[in-house]
Amino acid sequence: MMSNFAIPTSEFKERIAKAQQFMAEEGLDALLTFSSECEPMHVRYFADYWANFETTKVFIPAKGDPMLIIGPESMTYARARSKIERIVRMQDSCESLQPEYPGVKLETWEQLFAEVPTRKLGIAGWDIIPHVVYMRIQEALGDAEIVEADGLMRRLMLKKTPAEIRCLREAARLSEVGLQAVLDTIRPGLSEIQVVGIATGAMMAQGAEAQGYALWCSAGTHTAEPISRPTPRLLREGEMIQLQLGAKVEGYSASIGRPLVLGQATDEMLRFMQVGCDAENLMIDLMRAGTPASEVADKVHGYIRQEGYGDRILYGPGHSCGQMESELPYIETSSQYLLEENMTFHIDVFLGSEEMGYRWEDCVVVRRDRPAEQLSSLRREAMVLPVSPA
Amino acid sequence: MMSNFAIPTSEFKERIAKAQQFMAEEGLDALLTFSSECEPMHVRYFADYWANFETTKVFIPAKGDPMLIIGPESMTYARARSKIERIVRMQDSCESLQPEYPGVKLETWEQLFAEVPTRKLGIAGWDIIPHVVYMRIQEALGDAEIVEADGLMRRLMLKKTPAEIRCLREAARLSEVGLQAVLDTIRPGLSEIQVVGIATGAMMAQGAEAQGYALWCSAGTHTAEPISRPTPRLLREGEMIQLQLGAKVEGYSASIGRPLVLGQATDEMLRFMQVGCDAENLMIDLMRAGTPASEVADKVHGYIRQEGYGDRILYGPGHSCGQMESELPYIETSSQYLLEENMTFHIDVFLGSEEMGYRWEDCVVVRRDRPAEQLSSLRREAMVLPVSPA
Repeated sequence: MMSNFAIPTSEFKERIAKAQQFMAEEGLDALLTFSSECEPMHVRYFADYWANFETTKVFIPAKGDPMLIIGPESMTYARARSKIERIVRMQDSCESLQPEYPGVKLETWEQLFAEVPTRKLGIAGWDIIPHVVYMRIQEALGDAEIVEADGLMRRLMLKKTPAEIRCLREAARLSEVGLQAVLDTIRPGLSEIQVVGIATGAMMAQGAEAQGYALWCSAGTHTAEPISRPTPRLLREGEMIQLQLGAKVEGYSASIGRPLVLGQATDEMLRFMQVGCDAENLMIDLMRAGTPASEVADKVHGYIRQEGYGDRILYGPGHSCGQMESELPYIETSSQYLLEENMTFHIDVFLGSEEMGYRWEDCVVVRRDRPAEQLSSLRREAMVLPVSPA
Repeated sequence: MMSNFAIPTSEFKERIAKAQQFMAEEGLDALLTFSSECEPMHVRYFADYWANFETTKVFIPAKGDPMLIIGPESMTYARARSKIERIVRMQDSCESLQPEYPGVKLETWEQLFAEVPTRKLGIAGWDIIPHVVYMRIQEALGDAEIVEADGLMRRLMLKKTPAEIRCLREAARLSEVGLQAVLDTIRPGLSEIQVVGIATGAMMAQGAEAQGYALWCSAGTHTAEPISRPTPRLLREGEMIQLQLGAKVEGYSASIGRPLVLGQATDEMLRFMQVGCDAENLMIDLMRAGTPASEVADKVHGYIRQEGYGDRILYGPGHSCGQMESELPYIETSSQYLLEENMTFHIDVFLGSEEMGYRWEDCVVVRRDRPAEQLSSLRREAMVLPVSPA
């Protein structure tokens, strides 16, 4: 059960070195990355540390060693996990409740910037860093400049290394394990929540460290929700059911999305499900290194429109993935970049009306001169499962 | 499987009315509550809506109807769940990636404040509201005043209604279901992660909507981590194991913490585990309506010190609970309030050295003239489980 999919420690050091190289290009004296419990990517990428309850940050000076900034309660946890050796505690990384920790030695932003004189600070996690934390940093920095550094992180994370692809492949395999456990047991009368429980237990039994994101199963009109959460609603025969399942392995998050029907599907349901499946198949064939991402989106959306379902397109049809189930860049008709080898994406064909929808989703890696490689072995086919008599 | 534990719609309306009453007392023209995927409390309390991927807000004017503010992708989801009828979409509630949604009609803060003239705005979720969102609000408000309103929320949420206690009781029952599933299967060679998977699957099979928080099982030196996450590390005979399990029901989160040993425990382990158990038993007896919270903390910590484990106290020994597993106020030696009937707490006796630790945790409700009532039926006893031959 020990994971064979860890990112090597050397690779964490390479990430820091590469960040420092990009920082030099952008004239940054320091980079601060911010992560919450539910958006761990920018810290885990450098430190392999994933906070619980608390928030956390990585501080990388232009030259020299980085530090992991944690809250008051996590020192033993962080020491056991962090690939960054120097760990400091600050009050503003504590739980949002702001409990007091008398006797715990906490450091301040003033101490940090006295040690690392900073005229220009880049912040990654720009859209989630709390106002109160930003203001404390700004106060400690005086009139130094603060700039967004999410673009720098994106450059770092865009193309995956062999170790990263191994983690994603395992996450995709475990996502399939979860889905298969559902297919083995799903029946009318199970609740949406129970389906997610079955998948989660099976994935974790085989080694997933967590759900890859907050998973859901949705049924009936709930399938019209592009983002959802499972409810106590019971599954019924003949209605659309959406499975949105994924596992996390060493911080890497895969996802599988599939529509299915228990019992009898109407012809319209079958046709609707097949359009999404065909759109995904087309997309996998189109996604080759060197192809403009916008061309993929144009052709896939063009196909869906041609089949008469253009009004059910919400966005997409894909987005990068890695530490998070959903990362930039998206594959959209407005995309301005070429696909490159070893970029990883979730194909994400969501089609929905107010009454019914689904998402076909699979994790793929871009290859040269051949279609994208799906990282799980799950067949791409609309599923209509027989209902056995009770 | 349909949940019998929902908060009645009328109670959501009462919460809004009571918030407006408190707002009037504090001279607020409007209240804005902010929630992320991992800190859903301030929105779910009013709207019963729990965002996934996106962030979300509730806006309550001094008079009139509230609105739920969501991101571009969640309209069908929010319509199906929100107890607040008026739902508006804003770009800054979208995923932190900031994808574009051409064609989706989004509203702005300027439109909102044109409709609800606001000279003084209270913000709850003060420590998590992102800087970029705060700045957009401030820009739209001009020179109006913005103040923290977490204290107002705390007043609202402090004492639980019968419906809230029913949800917490069910969450505690399901936490015990998860723990019992673990006790039925735990053995050397299972990984920390597998243990959490077993508990999660069992809780969700019985109706928990999600884990109550990010659960963990820790073993050996990992038990020294007051906050942790499960790893692929395999459980061994004779080492300390910590179970930290909890279920969420209708937004209410319970937790159970228990130490255990597989096979043979040393005398020192047995004594150490028993001190935490006795401290919890003492605490339950002390927690009665009218008692100063600080007196409870003083006596419990006094007992632990008297038994020779004072150096292993990190904080606590308890904190309020409800929507979140951990809410304010804490029960600490510095606490300045009296316990009141229908306050709910997690007893949280964490004792740890650098090598080994544990947490005794149970969900309780404060009663008058009698000890606090534990909401699950789980026995409070140190567990040393026999290891059956393979």
